[in-house]
Amino acid sequence: MPEESFPAAPAAPARYDVVGVGNALVDVISHAGDEFIHHHELVKGSMTLVDTDRAVHLYAALGSAVEMSGGSAANTMCGVASLGGRAAYIGKVSGDDLGNVFGHDLRAVGVQFRPGTPDTDTPTGRCIIVVTPDAQRTMNTYLGVSSLLCVGDIDDETVAAGAVLYMEGYLYDRSEAKEAFRHAAGVAHKNSRMVSLTLSDSFCVDRHRDDFRALVTDEVDLLFGNEDELMSLYQVDSLDAAIARVRHDCALAVVTTGPAGCLVVTPDGVLRIAAEPVARVLDTTGAGDLFAAGFLYGYTRSMPLGECARIGSIAAAEVISHVGPRPLVELSTLLAETKG
Amino acid sequence: MPEESFPAAPAAPARYDVVGVGNALVDVISHAGDEFIHHHELVKGSMTLVDTDRAVHLYAALGSAVEMSGGSAANTMCGVASLGGRAAYIGKVSGDDLGNVFGHDLRAVGVQFRPGTPDTDTPTGRCIIVVTPDAQRTMNTYLGVSSLLCVGDIDDETVAAGAVLYMEGYLYDRSEAKEAFRHAAGVAHKNSRMVSLTLSDSFCVDRHRDDFRALVTDEVDLLFGNEDELMSLYQVDSLDAAIARVRHDCALAVVTTGPAGCLVVTPDGVLRIAAEPVARVLDTTGAGDLFAAGFLYGYTRSMPLGECARIGSIAAAEVISHVGPRPLVELSTLLAETKG
Repeated sequence: MPEESFPAAPAAPARYDVVGVGNALVDVISHAGDEFIHHHELVKGSMTLVDTDRAVHLYAALGSAVEMSGGSAANTMCGVASLGGRAAYIGKVSGDDLGNVFGHDLRAVGVQFRPGTPDTDTPTGRCIIVVTPDAQRTMNTYLGVSSLLCVGDIDDETVAAGAVLYMEGYLYDRSEAKEAFRHAAGVAHKNSRMVSLTLSDSFCVDRHRDDFRALVTDEVDLLFGNEDELMSLYQVDSLDAAIARVRHDCALAVVTTGPAGCLVVTPDGVLRIAAEPVARVLDTTGAGDLFAAGFLYGYTRSMPLGECARIGSIAAAEVISHVGPRPLVELSTLLAETKG
Repeated sequence: MPEESFPAAPAAPARYDVVGVGNALVDVISHAGDEFIHHHELVKGSMTLVDTDRAVHLYAALGSAVEMSGGSAANTMCGVASLGGRAAYIGKVSGDDLGNVFGHDLRAVGVQFRPGTPDTDTPTGRCIIVVTPDAQRTMNTYLGVSSLLCVGDIDDETVAAGAVLYMEGYLYDRSEAKEAFRHAAGVAHKNSRMVSLTLSDSFCVDRHRDDFRALVTDEVDLLFGNEDELMSLYQVDSLDAAIARVRHDCALAVVTTGPAGCLVVTPDGVLRIAAEPVARVLDTTGAGDLFAAGFLYGYTRSMPLGECARIGSIAAAEVISHVGPRPLVELSTLLAETKG
C-alpha cells in the first residue's frame, strides 16, 4: 500500500470493530467416508465452485444433512461478535428460506447485516460440505445470488464506520465483485480505516493472481492467508520467499500454518505463535475464519500482536472441536477462562 | 377394533415394514436458557401450534439455529430405515428450500417419500425447538402446508404395501386430516395390514378427545402413547385405569414412561421393560419417535414384545444422547453391538 494512505487522517470513532464482506452462504453439512470423495472426484480439503446441475447431483448423492449458516467472512464476523466485538457484514442473499436463515443467524449473535439490493431470480448460495472421518471438510459451493455482489451492494456508511474492513478472497471472482472490493477499500481508506483481506483458497489465488497481487499492493494493510495461498500469490516455492515479498506489500500479514500455529509478519520481523491444543478435532470448517476473528478482535483493541494471534488460536480451537463453522459457546467467556 | 377386521384375510407380502403418515416439518433447533421459556410464556416440554406471526416473533427472538429435518412420524420412519427396515412416508411439503431439505433427508436414508399433491401457496412447515440446559425441548410448530394433508394425498398403493400403517396424532387436527386417517386405516385393514397410532401429545388428545377415542376404538390395533396422553384419552386419574380401558380397545398398546422405560399392554397382561441407560442426555427431541421405530422394527419381524421394547429403548437412547431428532449412527450397527 502507498505509505501516505495509512493512516490518511485521524479517524472518526468507529461504530464497528470490523466490517466483513463476503459470499453469504448457508452450509449444508453431511458426513461421508473417503469413498464418497473418490467416487465423486472431489479434492479433499479444497473448495470447489459448482454449478446448479453439479450441486443438485452431489446433494442427491449425499446422506442426510444439517443446514447452518456459514460463509467465510460471515463466520469471522460472528466470531468477532462472540468475543464481545462489534461487527457488521455485507453479503447478498435472496428472500428464500435459506436467505432468511442466514440473516437470522447473523442478527441473533448481534452482527449488523447489510444484505445488499434484492435479486429475486437467483436463490441464496449454499455450500455443500462433506466432512470425512479425519475431520477434514471438502466444500462444494453453489454461489447463487451471493456472487452477484457489486458496488451498489456496498453500504458506504457501514464501511466508513468500521475500524477494519475485512474482505474474503472467495468473493473475488467476477469483475463486479472485484470492482466492489476496490470501491469498499477506497471508502475505508478515505475514512482512515484499515483494509484487510483473506486469500481464502490457493485455487482462488491461482485463478486471479495478477488482480489479487495488485489489490494486495495497492489496498491491503493486513493480509491473512495460509502457507499455500501466500506462496501461490507470489508464485514462489518457499514460505520464506513469500514472506520476504509480503513484508514489502503489507504493513502486517498473518500466515496460518495449521496445527503448527501462525506467523505474524511485520516490517520489523516475524513472530511465531503456537496453536492452542485441541483434545479432539471433529470438523475443521471455520478454523481460518475464527482465527481471523480472534486476531481482529485483539488488533482492534490494540493488543500486542502475539496476544492477537493467541486469541485467534483460541477461537479456532473452539470451532474445530465440534461440527459447524461458528462458535457454540460465547468466545468472550472462553477467553476470560484462559487468562491465567 | 372390531374382532373380525384383524386380520381380515391373509395379507400379501409387504413391500414396506412401516408406512408413516404425519406432519412433514423441518426442525429449527436452538439452545436457550429457562429465562427464554418464561419470557415468551412457553410451556416447557410441550408442543404448541403457532401462527405465522408468532413463529416469526419467536424465531426473531431466538439465537442462531440449526435446521434439520424432523416431524414425528418421519423421524420414526428414518429410525426404521436406520435399523435396516423398509419404510415409506406420506407427508406434505412445498417446493421451497425447506421442502427440498425434508425430501432429501428422507431419501438419503432410504425412506420412500410420498409428498402428496403440490400446494404452492403455503410454505413447508417448521418446528421451532428450544433446547434448555436440562435437555428438554419446547416445540413451537408452524404447520404450514403439512397440516393441509387430505384424502387425496394418501397414496393407497403405498399404504396397502406396508405391514403396519403408523399415524401421528399431531396431524389429527383439521377435519380433512381426520378424514385422511380414516381413509388410510380403511385401506390398510382392507389389505389385512395393521393400523397403529401415536397419541403424540396430551394437548392434541385433549383438543380432539372424542374423535381420538372413536378412532382408537374403531381402527387402531397398536397404540403408542405416554402416561399423560393415555390418561387424557380416557379422562382417568390413574395409569392403571387407563390401561384397563386401552386393553379393551386395542390388541396392543405401548405406554412409554420416560426414564422408567415402558409398559407393553396386551389382553394377556402388562409387560414392564426398563429403559436403556444413557450416559448424558443432551436433547430429548425424537425420544418417543425413535422408541416407536425400534418397537415397530422388532414387531414387523415377529420378535417377542419384550425384545421389541428393548430395541425401541436402544434407538431412543441413541437419539437423546445428541442434538437432533434422528439417529446419527446406523442403528442396525448399534443393535448388533448390544447383542451379547
